[in-house]
Amino acid sequence: MGSTKPLTGAGLRGQVAGKTALSTVGVSGSGLTYRGYDIKDLVEHCEFEEVAYLILKGKLPTRDELLAYKSKLKSLRRLPGELKSALENIPANAHPMDVMRTGCSMLGNLETELDFSDQEDAADRLLAIFPSIICYWYRYNHDGVRIDENTDDGSIGAHFLHMLHDETPKALHETVMNVSLILYAEHEFNASTFTARVCASTLSDMHSCITGAIGSLRGPLHGGANEAAMDMIAKFNGPDHAEREMLGMLERKEKIMGFGHAIYSESDPRNEIIKGWSEKLADDVGDSALYPVSVRCEEVMWREKRLFCNADFFHASAYHFMGIPTKLFTPIFVMSRVTGWAAHVMEQRADNRIIRPSAEYVGEAPRRVQPISERS
Amino acid sequence: MGSTKPLTGAGLRGQVAGKTALSTVGVSGSGLTYRGYDIKDLVEHCEFEEVAYLILKGKLPTRDELLAYKSKLKSLRRLPGELKSALENIPANAHPMDVMRTGCSMLGNLETELDFSDQEDAADRLLAIFPSIICYWYRYNHDGVRIDENTDDGSIGAHFLHMLHDETPKALHETVMNVSLILYAEHEFNASTFTARVCASTLSDMHSCITGAIGSLRGPLHGGANEAAMDMIAKFNGPDHAEREMLGMLERKEKIMGFGHAIYSESDPRNEIIKGWSEKLADDVGDSALYPVSVRCEEVMWREKRLFCNADFFHASAYHFMGIPTKLFTPIFVMSRVTGWAAHVMEQRADNRIIRPSAEYVGEAPRRVQPISERS
Ligand SMILES: CC(C)(COP(=O)(O)OP(=O)(O)OC[C@H]1O[C@@H](n2cnc3c(N)ncnc32)[C@H](O)[C@@H]1OP(=O)(O)O)[C@@H](O)C(=O)NCCC(=O)NCCS
Ligand SMILES: CC(C)(COP(=O)(O)OP(=O)(O)OC[C@H]1O[C@@H](n2cnc3c(N)ncnc32)[C@H](O)[C@@H]1OP(=O)(O)O)[C@@H](O)C(=O)NCCC(=O)NCCS
Repeated sequence: MGSTKPLTGAGLRGQVAGKTALSTVGVSGSGLTYRGYDIKDLVEHCEFEEVAYLILKGKLPTRDELLAYKSKLKSLRRLPGELKSALENIPANAHPMDVMRTGCSMLGNLETELDFSDQEDAADRLLAIFPSIICYWYRYNHDGVRIDENTDDGSIGAHFLHMLHDETPKALHETVMNVSLILYAEHEFNASTFTARVCASTLSDMHSCITGAIGSLRGPLHGGANEAAMDMIAKFNGPDHAEREMLGMLERKEKIMGFGHAIYSESDPRNEIIKGWSEKLADDVGDSALYPVSVRCEEVMWREKRLFCNADFFHASAYHFMGIPTKLFTPIFVMSRVTGWAAHVMEQRADNRIIRPSAEYVGEAPRRVQPISERS
Repeated sequence: MGSTKPLTGAGLRGQVAGKTALSTVGVSGSGLTYRGYDIKDLVEHCEFEEVAYLILKGKLPTRDELLAYKSKLKSLRRLPGELKSALENIPANAHPMDVMRTGCSMLGNLETELDFSDQEDAADRLLAIFPSIICYWYRYNHDGVRIDENTDDGSIGAHFLHMLHDETPKALHETVMNVSLILYAEHEFNASTFTARVCASTLSDMHSCITGAIGSLRGPLHGGANEAAMDMIAKFNGPDHAEREMLGMLERKEKIMGFGHAIYSESDPRNEIIKGWSEKLADDVGDSALYPVSVRCEEVMWREKRLFCNADFFHASAYHFMGIPTKLFTPIFVMSRVTGWAAHVMEQRADNRIIRPSAEYVGEAPRRVQPISERS
């Protein structure tokens, strides 16, 4: 065995595990950049599809390139019959992230990436089809309808809301979906992206990489946090109640979902943006409970623990105000992050060595197998 | 961002990424140990189910414990109807590892691990059901039969061969399957196991972790190597032909599957064992081509490059002699390695921190979004 270095950070925290040109997290003052562009700048000036193009193809598109890309994505929304049938076989009480994972995996059987020259098409197809997958399953198993996934909506966010609510979404909602999808699109070597890169390093196919990433995003310490945050704030009947409950949770040393971050130490730059939109949506629906509760949670966590909201916390109320069922929150994260995942897969492939770390052995010393009759 | 350390080994080679009590690879003279037992000792004295018990539950079973465990596994072979229907929907030309990945993911919808207290049961179920998944799909889509997966075979290896060939396997074949499943069961922080651990570190469920691991094992640099080795040796019509072709491949700097290893530097201890069984099987079928070809490949690679056979190389001929179709080789690896994967998931959960490394940024410097009309 080669010589191994001691473990200095559990969870590989602070250890460099590879190179990327895709994003920076927490460096150079600005909190988060995609290919050099600050997230605030992107949210202000771009559609999600533009940002997806940037992440996947390396540059911001011209108007013609964007139009062509959007119409390509539109043409890729349809679900193959075998996939529909698999989705119909998944019960209503399944975990929606299991549905996403299975939908992605099933598609890999039907439209296998046979050669890496197909990688961009495979990524575009996944980007276009994920809203169809989740909405088809959800509407079939919750409302008893087989939706038509081939809507004419101009954006991925609108496509999703349209299939979910059976009507063309209002402009405010389409805008917020757009912002949300941009905010979640890419985030360096987070756990799900790193999963995708480890898988890619064996030279496996795109669907395997993305399927694995979905499984990691499902975890409550990662993407699952927005749903957990929603469940929590829904239980508070006002800011003072929220404060009392939060203090109790902190005293009991419970983890509070939607707060803290492995890399950011002062704030998550995505929070300010989605918080602003959550406030606008609260106005729009005339909310006087969930938004003030959320603000109080933020204050209490900062005052007591210097813990700040990550991207997930105000996403909870924002999605809720748009009428999105809590169980679909993390699947929206997939609809967005698939861009970052796929770009990381392509980047890993372009300069690959199999990712195979070592472990520190803490087990039994060498011993001999005892005859079965002598064991206890 | 916390301070990051420079990348000293691409692919995290030689870097410690966590602790394990499950196995050692390449240390202390003996090449490979599971929980302190040398692989040779285990192969000589144990059944695969005994080794699975060792890996999953921490100790070798008594006779009663082994009997109870085997009968538990036997009772867990059945496929739910929804899973059968999903498998029937996967075309015959799909990649069998995509079938395994999808079968595992689909099962996660039907029998979700709702609480970590279910983890051992979830692992046992997967161990028992994987042969059913692959054979059901294979026989349905290749032979047009819906097999009965509830066979009465006493071992996992026999269960698999029985469903595949529609007859009780001969003793020699059951023995070799047993050995093969032991050899593949566990291997420290290889890429697929590491995938499972990264996923587990988000506190995701067992099916997500194993689904992700299958996707990584699929890659030709990892589990896919045994199939690639078979395709290669099948093309050689004798040892001299093999030698000429190998020399050509080496000259063209092609990677030769089934050789080399990320950790072992002199030999893979699993090779000697499976090579012996491959020779016995060659005798048994009266082979005078594939085995001598394989031996010559081994000689040439060592002589020319000091590269040795890994576990996969002689597995290719061994499986072939037992009448197993090449495309099912890597799924057998899954049937075995699921023990190691699941044990690593449980180990990660028991002392967890989310695995979230950093990246070295090699991309564009900060820049401003240009209006779309000014882009090129
Ligand atoms: C994001 C997260 C996983 C980062 O993990 P990490 O880098 O390993 O950081 P740690 O868990 O070591 O946090 C450091 C300390 O802050 C505490 N802490 C971190 N996040 C906390 C939270 N959300 N609630 C309460 N305490 C928290 C930890 O318990 C730890 O305290 P300790 O030193 O007394 O043990 C972690 O902050 C967390 O679990 N947050 C909640 C889940 C979440 O929102 N995830 C979405 C991330 S985008
Ligand atoms: C297993 C494997 C992925 C390990 O990868 P690694 O630790 O990154 O080792 P490297 O690829 O850096 O190998 C070191 C050198 O040996 C060469 N090498 C390694 N395995 C080789 C093989 N199977 N055929 C030809 N050359 C090989 C490499 O090209 C490299 O040469 P270089 O220094 O001139 O670039 C690699 O040996 C391999 O690809 N083997 C074939 C696939 C296989 O059998 N996988 C199953 C593993 S159980």
